[in-house]
Amino acid sequence: MSPVKAAVLVEHEKPLEIREYPRIERAAAGEALVRVDLAGICGTDVHLWHGQLPIPLPVILGHETAGRIVTLGEGLRNDWRGRPVAVGDRVTWASSVTCGSCYYCRLKNQPTRCVSRKAYGISYCADEAPHLRGGYAEYILLRAGTALFRIPDSVPTESVVGAGCALVTAIHGIERASISWGDTVVIQGTGPVGLAALAIAREAGASKVVAIGGPKHRLDLALEFGANAVVDMEDAATPAERVRQALTAIGPYGADVVIECVGHPAVVNEGMDLCRDGGKLLVLGQYGDAGTIDFRPHTITRKQLQLIGSWGFEPRHVHAGLNLLEHSAWKELFAGEITHRFPLAEANEALETVRMWRSGKTVIQP
Amino acid sequence: MSPVKAAVLVEHEKPLEIREYPRIERAAAGEALVRVDLAGICGTDVHLWHGQLPIPLPVILGHETAGRIVTLGEGLRNDWRGRPVAVGDRVTWASSVTCGSCYYCRLKNQPTRCVSRKAYGISYCADEAPHLRGGYAEYILLRAGTALFRIPDSVPTESVVGAGCALVTAIHGIERASISWGDTVVIQGTGPVGLAALAIAREAGASKVVAIGGPKHRLDLALEFGANAVVDMEDAATPAERVRQALTAIGPYGADVVIECVGHPAVVNEGMDLCRDGGKLLVLGQYGDAGTIDFRPHTITRKQLQLIGSWGFEPRHVHAGLNLLEHSAWKELFAGEITHRFPLAEANEALETVRMWRSGKTVIQP
Amino acid sequence: MSPVKAAVLVEHEKPLEIREYPRIERAAAGEALVRVDLAGICGTDVHLWHGQLPIPLPVILGHETAGRIVTLGEGLRNDWRGRPVAVGDRVTWASSVTCGSCYYCRLKNQPTRCVSRKAYGISYCADEAPHLRGGYAEYILLRAGTALFRIPDSVPTESVVGAGCALVTAIHGIERASISWGDTVVIQGTGPVGLAALAIAREAGASKVVAIGGPKHRLDLALEFGANAVVDMEDAATPAERVRQALTAIGPYGADVVIECVGHPAVVNEGMDLCRDGGKLLVLGQYGDAGTIDFRPHTITRKQLQLIGSWGFEPRHVHAGLNLLEHSAWKELFAGEITHRFPLAEANEALETVRMWRSGKTVIQP
Amino acid sequence: MSPVKAAVLVEHEKPLEIREYPRIERAAAGEALVRVDLAGICGTDVHLWHGQLPIPLPVILGHETAGRIVTLGEGLRNDWRGRPVAVGDRVTWASSVTCGSCYYCRLKNQPTRCVSRKAYGISYCADEAPHLRGGYAEYILLRAGTALFRIPDSVPTESVVGAGCALVTAIHGIERASISWGDTVVIQGTGPVGLAALAIAREAGASKVVAIGGPKHRLDLALEFGANAVVDMEDAATPAERVRQALTAIGPYGADVVIECVGHPAVVNEGMDLCRDGGKLLVLGQYGDAGTIDFRPHTITRKQLQLIGSWGFEPRHVHAGLNLLEHSAWKELFAGEITHRFPLAEANEALETVRMWRSGKTVIQP
Repeated sequence: MSPVKAAVLVEHEKPLEIREYPRIERAAAGEALVRVDLAGICGTDVHLWHGQLPIPLPVILGHETAGRIVTLGEGLRNDWRGRPVAVGDRVTWASSVTCGSCYYCRLKNQPTRCVSRKAYGISYCADEAPHLRGGYAEYILLRAGTALFRIPDSVPTESVVGAGCALVTAIHGIERASISWGDTVVIQGTGPVGLAALAIAREAGASKVVAIGGPKHRLDLALEFGANAVVDMEDAATPAERVRQALTAIGPYGADVVIECVGHPAVVNEGMDLCRDGGKLLVLGQYGDAGTIDFRPHTITRKQLQLIGSWGFEPRHVHAGLNLLEHSAWKELFAGEITHRFPLAEANEALETVRMWRSGKTVIQP
Repeated sequence: MSPVKAAVLVEHEKPLEIREYPRIERAAAGEALVRVDLAGICGTDVHLWHGQLPIPLPVILGHETAGRIVTLGEGLRNDWRGRPVAVGDRVTWASSVTCGSCYYCRLKNQPTRCVSRKAYGISYCADEAPHLRGGYAEYILLRAGTALFRIPDSVPTESVVGAGCALVTAIHGIERASISWGDTVVIQGTGPVGLAALAIAREAGASKVVAIGGPKHRLDLALEFGANAVVDMEDAATPAERVRQALTAIGPYGADVVIECVGHPAVVNEGMDLCRDGGKLLVLGQYGDAGTIDFRPHTITRKQLQLIGSWGFEPRHVHAGLNLLEHSAWKELFAGEITHRFPLAEANEALETVRMWRSGKTVIQP
Repeated sequence: MSPVKAAVLVEHEKPLEIREYPRIERAAAGEALVRVDLAGICGTDVHLWHGQLPIPLPVILGHETAGRIVTLGEGLRNDWRGRPVAVGDRVTWASSVTCGSCYYCRLKNQPTRCVSRKAYGISYCADEAPHLRGGYAEYILLRAGTALFRIPDSVPTESVVGAGCALVTAIHGIERASISWGDTVVIQGTGPVGLAALAIAREAGASKVVAIGGPKHRLDLALEFGANAVVDMEDAATPAERVRQALTAIGPYGADVVIECVGHPAVVNEGMDLCRDGGKLLVLGQYGDAGTIDFRPHTITRKQLQLIGSWGFEPRHVHAGLNLLEHSAWKELFAGEITHRFPLAEANEALETVRMWRSGKTVIQP
Repeated sequence: MSPVKAAVLVEHEKPLEIREYPRIERAAAGEALVRVDLAGICGTDVHLWHGQLPIPLPVILGHETAGRIVTLGEGLRNDWRGRPVAVGDRVTWASSVTCGSCYYCRLKNQPTRCVSRKAYGISYCADEAPHLRGGYAEYILLRAGTALFRIPDSVPTESVVGAGCALVTAIHGIERASISWGDTVVIQGTGPVGLAALAIAREAGASKVVAIGGPKHRLDLALEFGANAVVDMEDAATPAERVRQALTAIGPYGADVVIECVGHPAVVNEGMDLCRDGGKLLVLGQYGDAGTIDFRPHTITRKQLQLIGSWGFEPRHVHAGLNLLEHSAWKELFAGEITHRFPLAEANEALETVRMWRSGKTVIQP
């Protein structure tokens, strides 16, 4: 039988390699073997490529993935929501598996910080059997305990992968920061996380949302996603000018909630300037460790701010995200984010479109 | 009639001058003229002396003050809690007066950020009549609208001024950060704010409190205030060593809540290291603007921390503070913080003891 | 000069009388004399007519009112939001004035329970000068300290009075109960409070809202206001049948949040049945004291429910309500609630339409 | 080998029968066989005896139990907190096992309402093998998945069973209702739940706690547990008189938080009278369904109260309870609650002491 192809990060900042792994014949108890239909390329994949997070190498990248079930291990009859699953069903899954029994899982209700947490496409060395633990591949083998979700019939696979981990990350983050009905919101960044945050801010009843970002095609998306106003980073090239333009739209004291979805460390300072006194800054974009900034702690005290971090997401956020995609016009908007598609063999070209901010959302069809 | 003496900050980092101002004969409607019994010296006074906050000069310093009513203006019959006040009563007051009608007072419930807020001993130019708006003086004239509190008979004036603005600042800060019963707490700093935070953490049901500070006499106070363990900054001279010692006492993952009461910008980084993932860092000590630090935003996201600022306090925190001093052994502990007393003429010597961390708490008896 | 006409409740369950009061020539400091344009008739007015709340008699009813400024007292230059007001401006106001200094205002942040709270159209004896303290009248004299709001130019007076106190009551109630994005909501009642609660539930991101009510014309309004499904009280005449139909629409475990907007005591039991375990029941409709019910406390414990009450509203809720009416399609929907208009002389006929549930919203044009 | 004796509820309101069951030789994977040292008798056992909750019969009662491990099934090496367990260790456990995958466990974070939840001593028919699922027995067999806790060496078994499920129930309830530092608290009831609530209210920083209860020996315990004042139900025989006496101690507006720990439905009305406006009433005692009361919904709205229910507890509350017993004087106070001890053969006499409110806490030593 033919081997399975996968795009593998072998060395940081070097091209991914297409490698072959043994085909998997059967799934053990609780496991699921899935034929990958679409694998999204996330900004975090670029951070991983740059070496900004500690991961094993080589690794099959790809943590926002959907596909069809090929084989179900014994005992796996229902998805995470208790809905039946069968061979051939379209599914997606929470990219991380947690232990459920450590200090963070049990005592502190912070499962995204589980001490044994491992994420598909990030934490598994591709040299170790069963190898197929990332989405940039023809097949992926899901461990027992993976939070699997049957995709509702009304939701296209494109919506799920178009939304990607950005949507569920935004849902988790906004849950932590909590937007109240009527709050004003500024979103820093118009990449996938920024757009998803915009969608959730709208859903949560923000009275006004201003998005700061670029390039032009992304600002247009932001307006489609419901931004009341956008600030173009190209026109407003300095932090001071961006703050000035955003406050003109949001009100002179600043926003009740600012959501940082950029990933450049320096924007955290700009985010504090965008907050009204007593406001909240959700620091959502700093997944990669891109270094340090010059930072003034006095501002936190004087403006009595809250800076709130959020890492990844839990299965219940996938549940909420699928509900959102099922029940609303968001389905089309998120599917519409996909502007570039590549075969597996062109995984490097795919990654490049994300690295260079060229695409809305880029996907691989292995 | 003899003029009124006051100790005045005329120029930053220069000695205070003893100046004389016209005696005040009568109080207008709602005002109260008070003979100062004790004026506490706060760490913020040192920051003001260094020029780390924007204030008018010259200024009569002193924002934590208690005294006896000399004259009551028309209509002022009850204190903030509705209790009757009369000439001769011992009183203290919230150091700031807010407008009650601005964006922050009305719409955002952040009165400590009132756009018109003025604080006795900080915001009033001593050249302007009626001059007597600070505590380092024989008399102080309180504006109509000041939140005045009759000191309960069972509470010594020393307890009130020993607690100073540190206690109410800690009450406000911990209200914002919220300690839950059973939380573990690390307190950075064993000055008056650190000790007050320790008291409130204990009251709020912290299961374990570790204080990091010095010098020795302050660590002893921390133990008296209920710290389960202390870390001596002199023994543990590096951040890494302090974190190591604190985590040995608090548990390997870090504290649920860390309260920064030091005021040196760099300790904010150390505070993030002291937090468990998903924990809270209350940034309470950065009143003065002492500049910037090298800071890693990635840590906020990865550890999903909350950094929470708090500025000053509201009248209801004075109410809570007086309740604490009335009902418990805290009365003696806070009075016991006072280690140094000076007459008004030695205000510079008094300030020096605070600047050099020599005292528990220093007070002026004008 | 001609006297001022008003519709006065003189005796419970007797027709209102049209009485005349002396015309007011001038407004004292802080007061405003307003020519009433529209006075809404609230369900509470029916409760007052029945004697279900303790009030002085006689009373000029009318607590949801808008009009134009005739005379402004000295010092009154800005409205509650700080926007300039002038003679001729269209205005509305918070119907209650609170003291700002009692136990509830100061210490417990519950100003709607101010011990000195007095509401226009409810708490003022019409026999006492200056008499004009209710909305069913040609003129109303607003006390100093009233939270006055200039109506934005883009908002029709009909929207404001169509929304009435129902909108601000719903905003306050939902603030207390807090709807999170994605929550499922059942609303009991499709009168003005039910429709307003529906609007706010939608705004706050409810994933599904089911309304139980009637008659038919009100269910149509509920669908226009965004209900996903309605349950018709005429078809579903028993509590069990209403619960069955509502859960068919909302899901078998019940709703995350149930909002009671009916006012018949018995519906509280039905509301508990509509809640999922761990859910919330906002008891918003029990303004009048309509007596007792047979109630099972065990249900609260076993289902670990929260039953949450809310009384009236604060000025900031008027601010939020006007923002809602300004920024959205809600402006037309709320204006569209007005189905019946009467001159002052027909105040009894007007009240009758509300008592008999005939109207969407009834208004008096004095 | 000799059979195992157990005290079995065969018919409601009939004496328990001592029955014999086959001795268990081995524990399957994840199971633990425990020799019972002490089995507490809970007020709920009386409710079960009366038939106030739906349970299978016959049942071996006893859901607050401690003992020593006799046999450990394969794979069970650590307790719920990750601490090693071995044969001979003293242990206790969460009385309920939940599924972790239902609507309430997964989506709503309400595991105490797990649809498959089964409690030792309550939910297992004693006729079904392996029979030994209750604490009134020489041995109990714990299912795989039971949250097992090694009792710290410093904590006597008497402390654990003296605290019983009352302590963890109170911890859960107060978590749901949340007492803030400085709150005033009234506790209705001085049985084990009332005393435990008193302990936690004290720990959580209540500024004043008043307990209403009896008989005399329990009021003495309440004072030892830290009540500032007690109201004796025998002296104050009417609700109005109890409220009068409690408010004299707590303040005229009522308490911030009232905790109902009685279990008679009627006290819920009294509890609402004890709350200040805007206050919270934690309905903790209504475990058995003891019927209905005459109840006025208007009060919830007018006083804008919160009535909050809480059911059972989760493993993390056992963790918190053991921490409390380990770190403080509470260890002795809770052990000191035990006033009556009986051998298994006298289980009926034991139950009778609880039914008649004669004991502090009664335990069986099988």
